[in-house]
Formats: sequence, structure tokens, C-alpha cells
Amino acid sequence: MMLSEYTCLINEKLKKAIECKNSKYKGLYDAMAYSLNAGGKRIRPVLVLEFCRMTGRDFHAAIPAACAIEMLHTYSLIHDDLPCMDNDEYRRGRKTTHAVYGAGMATLAGDGLLNYAYETAVKGALAGGELSDYDGDNRNRFLAALEVLTAKAGIYGMVGGQCADIMAENADLADDQMKDVLAYIDENKTGALIESSLMVGAILGGASQSQVRMIEKAGSNVGIAFQIQDDILDIVGDQAELGKPVGSDEKNNKTTYVSLYGMDEARNKVKELSDEAASILRELGFSGSFLEGLFEYLIYRNK
Amino acid sequence: MMLSEYTCLINEKLKKAIECKNSKYKGLYDAMAYSLNAGGKRIRPVLVLEFCRMTGRDFHAAIPAACAIEMLHTYSLIHDDLPCMDNDEYRRGRKTTHAVYGAGMATLAGDGLLNYAYETAVKGALAGGELSDYDGDNRNRFLAALEVLTAKAGIYGMVGGQCADIMAENADLADDQMKDVLAYIDENKTGALIESSLMVGAILGGASQSQVRMIEKAGSNVGIAFQIQDDILDIVGDQAELGKPVGSDEKNNKTTYVSLYGMDEARNKVKELSDEAASILRELGFSGSFLEGLFEYLIYRNK
Repeated sequence: MMLSEYTCLINEKLKKAIECKNSKYKGLYDAMAYSLNAGGKRIRPVLVLEFCRMTGRDFHAAIPAACAIEMLHTYSLIHDDLPCMDNDEYRRGRKTTHAVYGAGMATLAGDGLLNYAYETAVKGALAGGELSDYDGDNRNRFLAALEVLTAKAGIYGMVGGQCADIMAENADLADDQMKDVLAYIDENKTGALIESSLMVGAILGGASQSQVRMIEKAGSNVGIAFQIQDDILDIVGDQAELGKPVGSDEKNNKTTYVSLYGMDEARNKVKELSDEAASILRELGFSGSFLEGLFEYLIYRNK
Repeated sequence: MMLSEYTCLINEKLKKAIECKNSKYKGLYDAMAYSLNAGGKRIRPVLVLEFCRMTGRDFHAAIPAACAIEMLHTYSLIHDDLPCMDNDEYRRGRKTTHAVYGAGMATLAGDGLLNYAYETAVKGALAGGELSDYDGDNRNRFLAALEVLTAKAGIYGMVGGQCADIMAENADLADDQMKDVLAYIDENKTGALIESSLMVGAILGGASQSQVRMIEKAGSNVGIAFQIQDDILDIVGDQAELGKPVGSDEKNNKTTYVSLYGMDEARNKVKELSDEAASILRELGFSGSFLEGLFEYLIYRNK
């Protein structure tokens, strides 16, 4: 599979994932569909599918989990954009969910997607279809994947990172303290879910526990590198390609890796983290043009 | 076990459920703990434990799932109270979460609890402790319970019901349409999670699929009766016992079963639904003083 084929498949699955079975919650359905089908890079589900494939199983086995991770990512964006959080009007080149549907419905749409992520993953494990060959042992494997996913998405992961981000904005921290806090934010707010994408894919694909621990480290690097690249693009990127205004971090007086360490060190850090991740994955026997392309894309992407 | 013993056990488990392992998300931890330890009737987790016990297994096997359901209930209250939703200042006799911690942190605390509910349930199924005797087959049983829980808590259940509630407030519906919508709201916004409490307990306790279907019907009745009793108490209840202002529905111009059908028909409906639920459960061989007490409590409770 090429990156674009995976992305196309995921977009297709996400479009069919939610149904409006009753007009009484149509507002919720519209807001969820609006957010989930807004596009985006789909980097997390692609990682799930590719790591499932690389560890030895047909990637179709991981489609429900891949969709679940994109739903978790999408809910976190909707809630982050809310007036009571970052109060952002634009995302991925379109009005944010609350700007279109109101803050109440956007809050519910986020709740709906967060819950539906797990509903989707569980249904995928239980029902026939792509996971019909799961036997007793593989259900345990599925529970192990679900354990990683719930942990990385929650208060000890992504939600905790978002909290640290909010708290840091209201605190007057010295640079050294801020470096410590920023490392936590990057690792958890952005990193944790990307980390879980590699891990969940690998667990469903049949990786051993020691392999998963190595993949966790590689995934953490990839996630943090991804965030720093995001900070870099906020300064040097192109608004039309990014789909959001550039310079927003500076305008919002937001502390980022670039503002704390400078552009050169930020670029070096992305390279260093990516190289280390690639080296871990090579050690595990994972290589190939897809993975290399993905890393290139990660480091040199311009959107 | 007596009702008060179950409640005490659940309060104890919930208090220990969340740890603040890192000061960087302390604001989130505080807001979650504030909400989760605010008391409340704990009716849902008690139902989980008792239905697990009645269907044949030691109730300890269902403790993680019981805690999970109370976390889901608590998150729904936090988000419902938000300024962008019902904008309530008091709940269970205390300031609401956003009134104390701000809307941003309350949104995150709700997200944190929603996610942590599933994290708790999954950890309970995988790890040792109370569920250490779960074998392969019981893991499937656990996934079946998780399927019910995610479905009843989500867009086709509780979240959908909350959406219908918000949409109805902004719509100018004729009485007949409103009766139809209100039935949907009561069944989903309140009913679905109570329904899932009985079902999840029974599934974990070893119930057959046909038993679970009957329990679903009984649970639906119990849930709707519970909501109508809530509407009744909003008019005739005592503020000190309820821990929230009475008359708030009328003040907020909120349509309830009582406002649509009158007090007498509301009381009759509670009785009718409860009697039918009790009859289904007797047919299943579930009876005893605990269950009778629970129903008495449900119908004649004054808080």
C-alpha cells in the first residue's frame, strides 16, 4: 500500500463509521461528521495499519482500531478549539466545529467521538468482518491494545498533556521550568496518541511485549518530532498548504520548542529524534520504502 | 450486602481510582476528584454489582465495570452543567465543577473521566486482582459487556439523548411531538446508562443472551421510571435532601413528564414501569429483599 491508498481507505471507513439512525440527534451527527470528514493527514491511522502489516498480520485486522485513533484525535481537536480552551475559529482550512454548530453541540460531538472511538474498537474486535479470525488468544491481544489506547489517550497521556498546556499558559514560569513543562506537553498532548498508533498496530499485528516496548520508544520520538515540526511550520509554513494561519503561536504568545530553543536547535531535534526512531525500528527489522517515506514526510512535510 | 455497604465500597474504590502521579496535570486531577467524590446515590454501580451477584458470580468481579459506569455518569453531569450546556451552578449540594475550576478544566475533567472509565474497565479485565479468574471465555464476556457499555453511553444512547434534549429546548414543538421527543430523551439521556448497569452486571455475572435481552427491557423501565421520579421530586422534593434547588425545571421552562402529563399520570407511570420491571426480573428468578428495597427506594426516594 502507498500512503495515499491507506489515507483513502481510512477516509472511506470514517465516512461510513457513523450513521444517523434517528433525526432526534441529527445535530450531533452533523457536527461529528463535519469534524471527522474534515480531512487532515490521517497520520495516526496510517501508522496503525502499517505497523500491523509490518509485524505480520494483514492490515485489515487493524482498521477498527485505526479509525478509533483518528476519532480520538478528532475529538481532542474539537475540544481544544472550544471557546473555553484555545478559542480557535479555523482548523484544517475550515471553520471549527463550535464556530459552525455552537459550543454546546461541539462539546457533545467531542464526547460522542471519544466514546464512539472505543465503541468502534470493541465492535471491531467482537464482530465478524475484518477481525473474524480473532480467536481467544487474539481477544487478549485486543484487550492489550485497548489498554495501551485508553492509557495513552487519557489523563496519564493526551488529556493530561492538554491540562499541562492550559496550566502553563496561566503560569509565569522561568525558561528552565518551562522547558521541563514543554517536554511533558509535547510528549503527552501530541506524542502519546502517535506513540499509541505504532504500539496498537504492532500489538494487533502480533508483536511481542519486548518489541512493543521498543516500538513505544520509537513512537514517542516520532510523536515529539511531529510536534516540533508543527511548531517550525507555524513560523515558516504556508497558510494555504497548512490550512490554518501561520504565526498563530507567536500571536498567541504561545511557548513552543522553537521559541524556547531557536529554529536551528528545533530542526536538529526533529532530525535527532527521527534518526533514533528509525534506528530502533531498523533494529526490529522494520524498514522499507514506505517507512522511509513516512519519516521523510514527517521531517520535511510542509503541512 | 446492604445498599449502604455497596455504596460505601464504591465510594472507597472511586476515591482510590485516580492518582495524581505528576503535578503537571494537578488541575485536572483536582477537578476530576472533586466531581467523582461529590457523593451522589451511586445507584448505577450498585445495580452493576447486585446484578453480577444475582446472576451467579461474586460481585467483586464487576467492581471495575461498576466504577467505570459511575465515571461515565459523572462526566455526563460535568459536561451537562457547563455554561455552553445547562449552565448550572449547583449539583449535589455543591458548586458545579466549572463553577470551581473554570469551564476549560471542567471540559477536560469530563473528557478525562469518560476516557478513564474505559481505561478502568479494561485494566480490570486484563489485570489480576478481582478479575484474575477470568479465562479466555470470560474475556469474550468482558468484551460483550464493554460493547453494551460503549453503545449505551454513546451517540446511540446517552450522548444522543443529551443532544435531543438540547435540540428540543431550541425547537418549538407541539405537545404530541414533544411527547415523542421526551420519550426518546428519558430513554436515552438517563435510561440508557441505568439500563447498561443491569446488563453489564448480568453479563459479567454469567447471564445468557436471552436473559440479557429481558434484563435490557427491565433496565429500560427502571431508567425511565428513575427519570420521571426525578421530575416529580423537582416539584415536590425538599431542597436540603435533594442537594439542589427544587422548581428548577419550571424556572428553566423545561418540559418534563410531569409538565406534559400532570403529576398523577407521572406517579402512575413510575409505578407501572417499576411493576413491569419487577415482574420481568421475578420471571428470571431474581428477587429478594435487596431488589425489592432497591425498587422501593427508586419509587419512593425523596432525593
